[in-house]
Amino acid sequence: MANQKLWGGRFSASAAEILDVFNASLPFDKKLYKQDILGSKTHAKMLARCGILTQDEADLICKGLEQVKDEIESGVFEFKLSDEDIHMAIESRLTQIIGEAGKKLHTARSRNDQVALDFRLFVLDSNKHLRNLVLNLITTLLSLAKEHTQTMLPGMTHLQHAQPVNFGFLLCAYACMFMRDFERLESTFKRNNYCPLGAAALAGTPYSTDRHFVAKELGFIAPTLNATDSVSDRDFALDFLYDTSLLAMHISRFAEELVLWSSYEFRFITLSDAYSTGSSIMPQKKNPDVPELLRGKSGRVYGNLMGLLVVMKGLPLAYNKDTQEDKEGVFDSFETLEISLRILNDALKTMTIHKDSMLKACRVGHLSATDLADFLVKNCEIPFREAHHITGKAVASAESLGKDLSELSIEELCAVDYRIPKEAHSSLDLKASMESRNSYGGTSTQATLAQIESLNAWLELAKTTLGNV
Amino acid sequence: MANQKLWGGRFSASAAEILDVFNASLPFDKKLYKQDILGSKTHAKMLARCGILTQDEADLICKGLEQVKDEIESGVFEFKLSDEDIHMAIESRLTQIIGEAGKKLHTARSRNDQVALDFRLFVLDSNKHLRNLVLNLITTLLSLAKEHTQTMLPGMTHLQHAQPVNFGFLLCAYACMFMRDFERLESTFKRNNYCPLGAAALAGTPYSTDRHFVAKELGFIAPTLNATDSVSDRDFALDFLYDTSLLAMHISRFAEELVLWSSYEFRFITLSDAYSTGSSIMPQKKNPDVPELLRGKSGRVYGNLMGLLVVMKGLPLAYNKDTQEDKEGVFDSFETLEISLRILNDALKTMTIHKDSMLKACRVGHLSATDLADFLVKNCEIPFREAHHITGKAVASAESLGKDLSELSIEELCAVDYRIPKEAHSSLDLKASMESRNSYGGTSTQATLAQIESLNAWLELAKTTLGNV
Amino acid sequence: MANQKLWGGRFSASAAEILDVFNASLPFDKKLYKQDILGSKTHAKMLARCGILTQDEADLICKGLEQVKDEIESGVFEFKLSDEDIHMAIESRLTQIIGEAGKKLHTARSRNDQVALDFRLFVLDSNKHLRNLVLNLITTLLSLAKEHTQTMLPGMTHLQHAQPVNFGFLLCAYACMFMRDFERLESTFKRNNYCPLGAAALAGTPYSTDRHFVAKELGFIAPTLNATDSVSDRDFALDFLYDTSLLAMHISRFAEELVLWSSYEFRFITLSDAYSTGSSIMPQKKNPDVPELLRGKSGRVYGNLMGLLVVMKGLPLAYNKDTQEDKEGVFDSFETLEISLRILNDALKTMTIHKDSMLKACRVGHLSATDLADFLVKNCEIPFREAHHITGKAVASAESLGKDLSELSIEELCAVDYRIPKEAHSSLDLKASMESRNSYGGTSTQATLAQIESLNAWLELAKTTLGNV
Amino acid sequence: MANQKLWGGRFSASAAEILDVFNASLPFDKKLYKQDILGSKTHAKMLARCGILTQDEADLICKGLEQVKDEIESGVFEFKLSDEDIHMAIESRLTQIIGEAGKKLHTARSRNDQVALDFRLFVLDSNKHLRNLVLNLITTLLSLAKEHTQTMLPGMTHLQHAQPVNFGFLLCAYACMFMRDFERLESTFKRNNYCPLGAAALAGTPYSTDRHFVAKELGFIAPTLNATDSVSDRDFALDFLYDTSLLAMHISRFAEELVLWSSYEFRFITLSDAYSTGSSIMPQKKNPDVPELLRGKSGRVYGNLMGLLVVMKGLPLAYNKDTQEDKEGVFDSFETLEISLRILNDALKTMTIHKDSMLKACRVGHLSATDLADFLVKNCEIPFREAHHITGKAVASAESLGKDLSELSIEELCAVDYRIPKEAHSSLDLKASMESRNSYGGTSTQATLAQIESLNAWLELAKTTLGNV
Repeated sequence: MANQKLWGGRFSASAAEILDVFNASLPFDKKLYKQDILGSKTHAKMLARCGILTQDEADLICKGLEQVKDEIESGVFEFKLSDEDIHMAIESRLTQIIGEAGKKLHTARSRNDQVALDFRLFVLDSNKHLRNLVLNLITTLLSLAKEHTQTMLPGMTHLQHAQPVNFGFLLCAYACMFMRDFERLESTFKRNNYCPLGAAALAGTPYSTDRHFVAKELGFIAPTLNATDSVSDRDFALDFLYDTSLLAMHISRFAEELVLWSSYEFRFITLSDAYSTGSSIMPQKKNPDVPELLRGKSGRVYGNLMGLLVVMKGLPLAYNKDTQEDKEGVFDSFETLEISLRILNDALKTMTIHKDSMLKACRVGHLSATDLADFLVKNCEIPFREAHHITGKAVASAESLGKDLSELSIEELCAVDYRIPKEAHSSLDLKASMESRNSYGGTSTQATLAQIESLNAWLELAKTTLGNV
Repeated sequence: MANQKLWGGRFSASAAEILDVFNASLPFDKKLYKQDILGSKTHAKMLARCGILTQDEADLICKGLEQVKDEIESGVFEFKLSDEDIHMAIESRLTQIIGEAGKKLHTARSRNDQVALDFRLFVLDSNKHLRNLVLNLITTLLSLAKEHTQTMLPGMTHLQHAQPVNFGFLLCAYACMFMRDFERLESTFKRNNYCPLGAAALAGTPYSTDRHFVAKELGFIAPTLNATDSVSDRDFALDFLYDTSLLAMHISRFAEELVLWSSYEFRFITLSDAYSTGSSIMPQKKNPDVPELLRGKSGRVYGNLMGLLVVMKGLPLAYNKDTQEDKEGVFDSFETLEISLRILNDALKTMTIHKDSMLKACRVGHLSATDLADFLVKNCEIPFREAHHITGKAVASAESLGKDLSELSIEELCAVDYRIPKEAHSSLDLKASMESRNSYGGTSTQATLAQIESLNAWLELAKTTLGNV
Repeated sequence: MANQKLWGGRFSASAAEILDVFNASLPFDKKLYKQDILGSKTHAKMLARCGILTQDEADLICKGLEQVKDEIESGVFEFKLSDEDIHMAIESRLTQIIGEAGKKLHTARSRNDQVALDFRLFVLDSNKHLRNLVLNLITTLLSLAKEHTQTMLPGMTHLQHAQPVNFGFLLCAYACMFMRDFERLESTFKRNNYCPLGAAALAGTPYSTDRHFVAKELGFIAPTLNATDSVSDRDFALDFLYDTSLLAMHISRFAEELVLWSSYEFRFITLSDAYSTGSSIMPQKKNPDVPELLRGKSGRVYGNLMGLLVVMKGLPLAYNKDTQEDKEGVFDSFETLEISLRILNDALKTMTIHKDSMLKACRVGHLSATDLADFLVKNCEIPFREAHHITGKAVASAESLGKDLSELSIEELCAVDYRIPKEAHSSLDLKASMESRNSYGGTSTQATLAQIESLNAWLELAKTTLGNV
Repeated sequence: MANQKLWGGRFSASAAEILDVFNASLPFDKKLYKQDILGSKTHAKMLARCGILTQDEADLICKGLEQVKDEIESGVFEFKLSDEDIHMAIESRLTQIIGEAGKKLHTARSRNDQVALDFRLFVLDSNKHLRNLVLNLITTLLSLAKEHTQTMLPGMTHLQHAQPVNFGFLLCAYACMFMRDFERLESTFKRNNYCPLGAAALAGTPYSTDRHFVAKELGFIAPTLNATDSVSDRDFALDFLYDTSLLAMHISRFAEELVLWSSYEFRFITLSDAYSTGSSIMPQKKNPDVPELLRGKSGRVYGNLMGLLVVMKGLPLAYNKDTQEDKEGVFDSFETLEISLRILNDALKTMTIHKDSMLKACRVGHLSATDLADFLVKNCEIPFREAHHITGKAVASAESLGKDLSELSIEELCAVDYRIPKEAHSSLDLKASMESRNSYGGTSTQATLAQIESLNAWLELAKTTLGNV
């Protein structure tokens, strides 16, 4: 019955079947098979090193686990709900393959520390993977920024034209956000890079194990300090859910701008056909579906963070089954960000930037009004209040002529007030206005190029440290 | 490569493949196939009624759609990502089967109102389904409550023993919560039971359609009032996510008590073996996994609500692609509640209630202290403050004897203070204490039975109205 | 020390002082003074009716409570942190005023049911108050809508021009959202309109009270059914926090449009000077601060909902101190919505609507393309695919002439393809396009007027039922 | 009218008054007065250094600002809603005091970067303050832990007795959580320790300013890199809201245990009278109000995080008024954690620990069953399955004797199965069981002392680095 395949099936299931579905984590935690096998191999090696297993037993276990891995990756492995979780699924199969030795693998550990290890490894791997994608995105942004340090458009506050800026400068603003995202992920990685294996059920083990060996083999800084904390801690997952929430938030902001810029009203950019969709009914339409989805994805990512925060609220020590609810949200947030970062990167690389529309928009809103007032203050010894008043008259005059302030001729400008000298006309120039904001971090071409240089230097360093993790 | 099957595959995918994955809703919205086919059949009938299609065309379409449904339910239907969504998947196949007539089905509608209809039908169906399960749960609670109106245990505030209550009375408290959940779902259903089909893209259609016919055929109260609102409204989904959040919250409270009651410290109940799990290492252990999971599930359900609230925040009219993010959370919350309600119901039916432990616990905490003070006030004309003081002495005396206040003999009690008459001894009785709270809604057996009767009357009515929806 | 007044003070406070600050709810629950006094007066009357107090005592209590109320409202009442909460603050003062009788007021109730009553009364009052404001807002929307059923602007999907609609039609979409908000609040009111007083600490009371009298006097439907549920239930507060969240979400959507419409790119509206602010630096600027804040307020309102959902997660029965955290969020969400609804209403009433800009925008995006294709299908027996192709050619031709499709002359149109008859030219007309969408709920003037009429009828009914609550 | 003072007042306010209330941030942002004055003084010094102001003007400004600060701190400063925000309130008063020079202070900055600076300074100050309190709490935990490395109690998983652990070991688990909280705050501090002042409205300034000087003077690492990012970035506030959410979550877990441990069922601890409250009705009662509130406070802190995440979702560059909603949640989360950390610290210091109850609880649940099985495997060459079976028989035998396994005599034990040697009896010892778990991070006294030592070493280092910030 296909109905069952979709979702109706459960309705006619027996109580016991429902219970299996309810309890089992295998349908989602099978994603951890690689981490589980890696952890078990390392555990077996340690047990042999410490004389708890013989070297032969450990070798047999490692070989068996490799076979299980092959079976999973080639698709022949049969996942059975009755195995409950990935740990049992792998151990059962291992024991089928290698016999009694398989049963010894679980010595000096428990499922509590085993799942803590597997999940932590997954989260740390995902952290690195996302950092890589963030660096790719920053690379694209800086490359685009470098091309557009002279591409002028109206800088906005309150979605109102404020001052002329260059497009590269705005892209640098986003590069800064993503730089922080990288750094946030990086510090999260370091803070959580400790190995919980060996904590056993909650209190350590009577066996003489070597947790430092396991930690080192698996690339951790050290073993975790306290066994009970090790099995009940999910900070590493929450940190990841938060880091991805900020990433999603930054992407939602960028996406909002891409939607605005794609509208008829703005027309600053055109997304490549692949990144927008048409309408079967209205042939003239081109919808920015991709940035809309990028924007909307923030919802699920925030929701995943909130979900795990709720799960952990008020849980007493040590392990509680509630914690099984930690994984699906993390998987979803990882996959969402993984694809979002790639898609955003590709969309930026392939979009068309309409310099002419951007420039044209600068001629709306009298963007150089402040510059005229500043000129009068600095050069004509006119107090700011008076200068402000004269500028107001100039704006009014321009509007009566149906022009933007920047479009007034010398004559038209001087006719506004006898105190305006000819030299003041140059202050109306939009390009000059932009270039004048040359302070550190400002929008002049020079200041923007300096930002790009700084960001590129940071980028090179980040690539190196990420490579070395 | 199995790696690809699990999640690694996307890493080597091309930009175009990734984009398909990103945009397509088919992997999750295929759950709406039934609703989509039902909606399309009704639409076709209406088009024929209004002379927009011929009756033959409409019949052909309906027959074709039935075939598509059969193919899906028998598992032979091939879902292709390139079809993007369930609407296109079904329409493509329909046109393959019946030819040109299939292309006419989309007349006078758009995907915007089509998905609004399908999803709304799904949410309304789910609403009814959950209400049914809520009624089942209340039935179990009332049946248990009726058995236990004399089963005394310490009523708690601040997790401290407060006053003796009967177990049935506590179960009635939960029945009241679930009664409100039912009523909340019911009013949600009514408020959203309007049909959006016919709103078309956002502004209605030039065809002479009959939206009232469609609405009536599909069981709605009426068509929605405004086309733009119809395609952009997701209140019905948010209402559902909220209703399920409160359900999950109530379940989490009950689950917390089940966990507490199962502990060595309480031992008020023992869950059936099926609803708790053992430990492969510690044979003496029995863990209340099921209530722990029930408690933890609140996280994901809250998260789904927050997720969609975020998606909808600040969205301009009318349809935006962000809205595609509305479905997965609703599916997940529905499925979570659907299974949680069934599991909780079964767990309650099969648990063992330890009346003796409950009773024994009543003898800890001097639960009848208030009753002694009240007796002195009412019968001996002692002012409350003085009575309170005398009672304090009685409590101290009991503690020095290593007894609970309720365990003092007449002699021991009278020895506390000369103003305590023999008759006061009966006020120490725990059962009498419980039975004295006979006010409307109180914990006496009589008052509890009255509650059960009221709730049963409500239940019968609710079953009738639900049956008639 | 002013520092202390602001916030630094606590840093040098003693442990005991800090604890007072931590525990006390008086600083915020004093907002409940009216509800507390009303509840206490009714309780005293009931106690007298049931012979638990004498009529003289009850009269004295009521008179004393009136005096306390006067003292609070005239500002002479001294709130002392040591009183902890509003209940104790009022009762202490009452006893100071009337002596011993004041101490008898607390008979047959507890702070647990007292606070449950006070807070519920507050929430129900707030509910009605917000419903009133929602009706005011809908009145404004409908009045504006009626003026603008012929004011044409581009209907958007994906923020892209889609089809011409009238402005009144869009306002009706918002009216529909707010109508649902009203109905949601209304059903919330009914579901929670039950009186918890008399539940006492958690189990009812041994006194022969008359909870039905109290419930009736205070305007409730009936007393709550179960004492333990009565003191631990906070569904009524959560329902309110959810209802306000949806209200805030709808407002955030409208606000987003007001921000967009106020931009240089759109210029569909100009907010009144009072509802936008200038810049001290850039005199040309006018920022839509008010709608931006309206949009941003959704954050705190969502946060308040999430906050209480978290508090209630996993709380065992019955009363727990955690619940004290229920009030501040509710107060904040109420006040936020109360002012937001008024501000939005005023902003709409005073904004200027630029019909010309709206109309001009309709001439961008070839909005009548679908209409031309439809004409060819209906009148020239050209299959839709072919008609679509011809229309594509017409669009291309218009673009090469630098015109919108709707601006082509008869000659220019007919030159596109020999199959286009002169009569087809009328289909390019934007107004005709809008008026053609005359289906139920559509955007034609007639259909819009019908919506306004329906909404007005609903509005009248809602006013009546609200008045009668 | 007192009504107005409380909250009713706004209902009769005029539209303009309401608008002032709606727009103004002064009622809450006045908390930033110190940061605002410090920032302005530094800005003035820089302007003088760069020749934009004369040294005399700068001195006058600084002196005037000091006076304003004194006026605020002595309570004579009059806050007027019409000043809108703390920046205008201070600048207006400054200009009143020193005249024209006051108006020059705003040169080369804007309110956008000014508020970004003030708020960031506040958040960084709060970060350091909380870190101090976290170190105090860890100090208390470690001191308690050291006292209790031999205080045995049942370690729990699933709230079921699992294995014997020492109380100091559990306290170390919490110390580890708070250690991560410290490190999280520390990395947040570093990542956000950059100075936004000088970014001006959004694009930098034409004046030749020295942002590096300002940054250094105020203790920042450097100026921020991009002007637009500087005024729109609120990551620093979100990071703080997240860090406090995790702190609150950890506290809620600890609080849950304190509530459980205070119950009649556990009686592991008794809170000092100051940290629990009695009942006016039930004199025997002592409620753990403080830990309940600590647990409940997680709700508001999570809510504040969610609130700002929602505000920032989808905001286009650069400054938008929505961002004004960033402060209240941060203030509230800071104050909540500030008081919670102090209260928890004091509650721990003053609670009584019932070693006897803890020990007694160890004798429930056959905690040494695993140890017996292990003994048989290691010493008697009995396979684990068989040993497990024999142990099961021993448990059953103990239960039939009404004893815990650990209480069996040698004879009773040996009578269970002929394969059990006398020597096995020592494995039943609970203390031995605890001490056997001597692996790194385990619960043996030795391993616990090692943890305390490591944590103390970390603590010393943390104090040093915090002092040097």
